[in-house]
Amino acid sequence: MQTLIIVSHPTLADSNAQRFLWESLPAEGVTWHHLESVYPDGQVDREAEQQQLLQYDRIIFQFPFYWYSSPALLKQWQDVVLTEGFAYGPDGGRLAGKEFGLVLALGVNEREYQAGGREGFTLSELTRPYQAMAKKCGMVYMPAMVVSQFDYLNDSKRKELLVAYQQYVSKDTEASLKTTENWFKIQLQSLGKAGLSEENQQLVEHLIAVLEDNREHLDDLAWTLAQMEGNQLG
Amino acid sequence: MQTLIIVSHPTLADSNAQRFLWESLPAEGVTWHHLESVYPDGQVDREAEQQQLLQYDRIIFQFPFYWYSSPALLKQWQDVVLTEGFAYGPDGGRLAGKEFGLVLALGVNEREYQAGGREGFTLSELTRPYQAMAKKCGMVYMPAMVVSQFDYLNDSKRKELLVAYQQYVSKDTEASLKTTENWFKIQLQSLGKAGLSEENQQLVEHLIAVLEDNREHLDDLAWTLAQMEGNQLG
Repeated sequence: MQTLIIVSHPTLADSNAQRFLWESLPAEGVTWHHLESVYPDGQVDREAEQQQLLQYDRIIFQFPFYWYSSPALLKQWQDVVLTEGFAYGPDGGRLAGKEFGLVLALGVNEREYQAGGREGFTLSELTRPYQAMAKKCGMVYMPAMVVSQFDYLNDSKRKELLVAYQQYVSKDTEASLKTTENWFKIQLQSLGKAGLSEENQQLVEHLIAVLEDNREHLDDLAWTLAQMEGNQLG
Repeated sequence: MQTLIIVSHPTLADSNAQRFLWESLPAEGVTWHHLESVYPDGQVDREAEQQQLLQYDRIIFQFPFYWYSSPALLKQWQDVVLTEGFAYGPDGGRLAGKEFGLVLALGVNEREYQAGGREGFTLSELTRPYQAMAKKCGMVYMPAMVVSQFDYLNDSKRKELLVAYQQYVSKDTEASLKTTENWFKIQLQSLGKAGLSEENQQLVEHLIAVLEDNREHLDDLAWTLAQMEGNQLG
């Protein structure tokens, strides 16, 4: 899996959180793309950005949560790059099926983002514009990853963060596994219709059956695991 | 009442909707502040913007709804101007009590902004970041004004839009009336404590009583009006 992390931060060098995330990156499969470094004049290159996006399976927006949204340059990137005919609309849908994630760095404790908290709204509410964007582009929206008040985290919490971040940017999700399976199934089924020999058609049907058996087995395991975790907690 | 309309649109001259709104402005009490004209280089002047904000009772953000948010320059404006110590935090709260409005120009029919519609989320959901901003600044959030697919509106609909816009930018709301009354009451009450002569204290108490009577009378009228509208509709 290939992941593109689109980072927007106007003063990246001053951010301990962003430096830590950068140092936590896995060695392979991940590209770090800091917009303010690439475009210091704010002139986003639509063609280059669109071509780049097509090469990745997972697209992540990573930024400090300024006024409940991204810094301005990432918004500019959205408006320039995600055009009708590319991201949506007739002949669009070029990002459909890719995964979309958010890595949000908060200056305020995450607990404040709830009814009655100082910020008053949940992060799920405040990130609706990104959910709507993913929906319009046909992308699979991942639960956001939140880095809350990084400078106050102790070493143990930072190690947890490192692992969580590595997984967020590189680990297959249940959604990506299912997407891959479905992709194989569709490919195999279209093979079956393409005038294969009877022997090969049987092989294809067999492969599809194996995929479906595996999926059932995985779902069973996930269910059992959830029960065990429930028992431990209860 | 003085209203500041902060307009953000990267290609304002090409927008029929924005031209129409500009031509609809009342002659007095409203300032049109187009960010891309004032700051073609994107360098927002914090000090000038903050001083300007203080002179107005109602602040409006007006923009085309690009990717469920504003164009980038308005976001830049928020991040530069609405600083801790001015808009919020210790010694902040300088915008508290002002009214905050949104004028959103949509390229898509407003009906699509609902569960099951093509956009999938309501405008109230998608504008949560502005609601949270108003809350943090202690501003009174007005229901948003929506201009949906302006180019398709006939003359009659455009006339309705003109009136609705003039009212949105200049008419006292129930909230602004109550705010004004409360402001007077607090002023009058603090006068009463400031060692006035007994005669003047009686005058002040009389004025407060008149204000409260007026408010009760207004509330009664509003209730009666709502009943009548209900009967007409039913």
